[in-house]
Amino acid sequence: MENILSTIDDNLPASLDRLFALLRIPSISAQPAHAQDCRAAAQWACDTLQDMGFAARLSETAGLPGVVATHHAAGPNAPHVLFYGHYDVQPADPLALWHSDPFDPQLTDGPRGQRIVARGAVDDKGQVVSFFEACRAHLAVNGKLPVRLTILLEGEEECGSPSLAQLLTQERDNLAADFVLVADTNMWNFNTPAITTSLRGLAGMEVTLHGPSRDLHSGLFGGIALNPINELTRVLGSMRDAHGNIQIPGFYDGVAPVESSLLASWDGLNFNPEEFLGAVGLKYPAGETGQPALAQLWARPTADINGIYGGYQGDGAKTVIPAHATAKITFRLVPGQNPENILENFQRFVTDALHPDARATFKSFGAAPGFAMSLTAPFMRAARAALEAEFGTPAALIGCGASIPVVEAFKTYLGLDTLLAGFGLDDDCIHSPNEKFEVACFHRGTRAHARLLSAFGERG
Amino acid sequence: MENILSTIDDNLPASLDRLFALLRIPSISAQPAHAQDCRAAAQWACDTLQDMGFAARLSETAGLPGVVATHHAAGPNAPHVLFYGHYDVQPADPLALWHSDPFDPQLTDGPRGQRIVARGAVDDKGQVVSFFEACRAHLAVNGKLPVRLTILLEGEEECGSPSLAQLLTQERDNLAADFVLVADTNMWNFNTPAITTSLRGLAGMEVTLHGPSRDLHSGLFGGIALNPINELTRVLGSMRDAHGNIQIPGFYDGVAPVESSLLASWDGLNFNPEEFLGAVGLKYPAGETGQPALAQLWARPTADINGIYGGYQGDGAKTVIPAHATAKITFRLVPGQNPENILENFQRFVTDALHPDARATFKSFGAAPGFAMSLTAPFMRAARAALEAEFGTPAALIGCGASIPVVEAFKTYLGLDTLLAGFGLDDDCIHSPNEKFEVACFHRGTRAHARLLSAFGERG
Repeated sequence: MENILSTIDDNLPASLDRLFALLRIPSISAQPAHAQDCRAAAQWACDTLQDMGFAARLSETAGLPGVVATHHAAGPNAPHVLFYGHYDVQPADPLALWHSDPFDPQLTDGPRGQRIVARGAVDDKGQVVSFFEACRAHLAVNGKLPVRLTILLEGEEECGSPSLAQLLTQERDNLAADFVLVADTNMWNFNTPAITTSLRGLAGMEVTLHGPSRDLHSGLFGGIALNPINELTRVLGSMRDAHGNIQIPGFYDGVAPVESSLLASWDGLNFNPEEFLGAVGLKYPAGETGQPALAQLWARPTADINGIYGGYQGDGAKTVIPAHATAKITFRLVPGQNPENILENFQRFVTDALHPDARATFKSFGAAPGFAMSLTAPFMRAARAALEAEFGTPAALIGCGASIPVVEAFKTYLGLDTLLAGFGLDDDCIHSPNEKFEVACFHRGTRAHARLLSAFGERG
Repeated sequence: MENILSTIDDNLPASLDRLFALLRIPSISAQPAHAQDCRAAAQWACDTLQDMGFAARLSETAGLPGVVATHHAAGPNAPHVLFYGHYDVQPADPLALWHSDPFDPQLTDGPRGQRIVARGAVDDKGQVVSFFEACRAHLAVNGKLPVRLTILLEGEEECGSPSLAQLLTQERDNLAADFVLVADTNMWNFNTPAITTSLRGLAGMEVTLHGPSRDLHSGLFGGIALNPINELTRVLGSMRDAHGNIQIPGFYDGVAPVESSLLASWDGLNFNPEEFLGAVGLKYPAGETGQPALAQLWARPTADINGIYGGYQGDGAKTVIPAHATAKITFRLVPGQNPENILENFQRFVTDALHPDARATFKSFGAAPGFAMSLTAPFMRAARAALEAEFGTPAALIGCGASIPVVEAFKTYLGLDTLLAGFGLDDDCIHSPNEKFEVACFHRGTRAHARLLSAFGERG
């Protein structure tokens, strides 16, 4: 193990060079103009894994391809791990707020040493490459890995994974494993690793309200003519009551209280909501009145409007009543909520509330349920030991308020449970301008991955 | 009077020739390339009025010149009328939709006889020339006008009147009059003239809600972090209640019920809201429950959101809680409402409703009060009699839901009330391709102007 770890230490500059090559590819899956860049990122991963000795190939889908790679030199009796990551990234806008080109990765100085700044630095290219580099060190020292390893990379994680079901279905036989390891989550803090034991699900929908057949002059029609923006604010403004409770009928169907043992363990994390919120210019937990802050963050469902637009958006004023107005909404879901029901109930909530001259059209952005892991599975015990060995402190057992729809997909399509252990930090600005990954996190993440591979290999 | 009217009838072809000469000048005030054309139109009006015996001159401003002309042969005891019109026109684009060159005026056949087709045919060159021709007939028959007349033409009406305040200020002593006559409005229908007796005012404001100091991931912060778009919809969505009543404290201060005589006269107009709304794809009056449709349109205040934006507006979904969200709102105001108070009350309404982690900033877009004319002023009684004599039916006393900034300017800078009587029709396509003016409207408008001048002269 020590040889492997020192190999990782020695090769850090080369590891960063490889990561930077991937970060330079603007693989924005949500924007069709970047489809070729996404394919280039997939091909980069494929080529890199082949160079390391993996059998690697693209797996074409109706959308962007997956990457499937195997290294089975450990033999048929070794434990079998399926590693998952994604090569696509979020759009980089608003570009004006970046201090450097989001696709020209930089090493800058920060309070914890150097950091990698780029779109995808941590989400998820940095985490994926840290795992690759752990494999590279095992292969350099031993010529093989401690486990049978299959790697699956997806190219549409940031736009709702529209082809994941197809990918898992067509590759089902090639993805057999004991469990899935996903590196797309955060540590508890810079010195404390974490295993994420629950995720919130996600259901997204766009609603457009249509009013007049064309834009109207607000003087000649104002008052008598329905205004779709007023109507949209009225309907969506009533979605949450004064206590933050979501008013969509049936929204809380199936929601169970948080397990008391988990609540107790969260108490031990000494989470400071003022500090957490203060880092982003806020102060007061804004969720359901009476829910603990960590429950608001990890274990309670939400209804957030992510985007809204309608009418005149330029400088100054324009006296217009627009023909339509649009909002994009996502619901974070917890285990027990049925995502399809949530979207149906939301549509009914909107249409039932509308003025008769307003008409709503909807676009679904997909839906995935919330997820909670077994705390007693063997791979969970191995992972806790490996992380404690690297960091010198036990891993925190945390929840995550975000979705990783693949976790549900692995359960549905492959029947596999998922272990979520990643090395990002809460201040990494993922999905925001100036996304970064601490070099120390990348480095210790690589070492931790090397230990995890060994720990998983010691089964039985 | 009969001699004057028959002179107008006999000279109709020559009147049209003079109008066509003015229409051939592309005096587009919004386009600097047409500055010389605008000056040429001003000079044409100046020369034409001088030929008729007026003392006429250009009045230079920081922008395009005004035209000021006087004919005071009626003597110092005659009533004094200030006539206002504008010699500039809207841009003609999109040119491809015109059936003939917008600056090569044509006489074409339509369902109501011949029509004049050109940019400016009715707005406002046709209306201005019909007034000139009425003066010409009076002068031909009597050698003088029934009133002291001052004519003011503006050259920047179609681009926001940036120099009007300067023009009125520098010419203040030369523009003294009993009232202003403006010919830039429409008849009720082809057979019914109209006097516009009220205008709504306008107050505009932009509000931006600031939440987190940067865009946040809605999974990692959703629930606990204030979302400015949710907050904006909640606050603005509560601006109107289920009956369309505006909930801003003090909003209705000073609003008087519509005068019952006016309501009764509106009843006589047989306004059909379904037809009016049907033309723009709507069906149901959306204003305050219980208010007649025409009151909603002309005499009740509004709160319309003209634009809204925040967060992600591209294709698909982005799971973001944005740092801010913005809306642009205009209030149409009625007499009695204080525009500055409305904007102050709106700001207080928003700030009082905010979650403590939201902060609002505001931009004012200016404010002008509503305007209602006395129905019993002598010039109003004279105008109603003159229009009824020409058309054989009483003038409709209508409102206008929009603002006419010159009306406010005349009150502010000259202390004068304004009589709004014009001879356009709703289907004249002003500001659009194939703008037209019915020859019958031009002709009857000229005759009506001749009668108005006589009626105004009979004061005392």
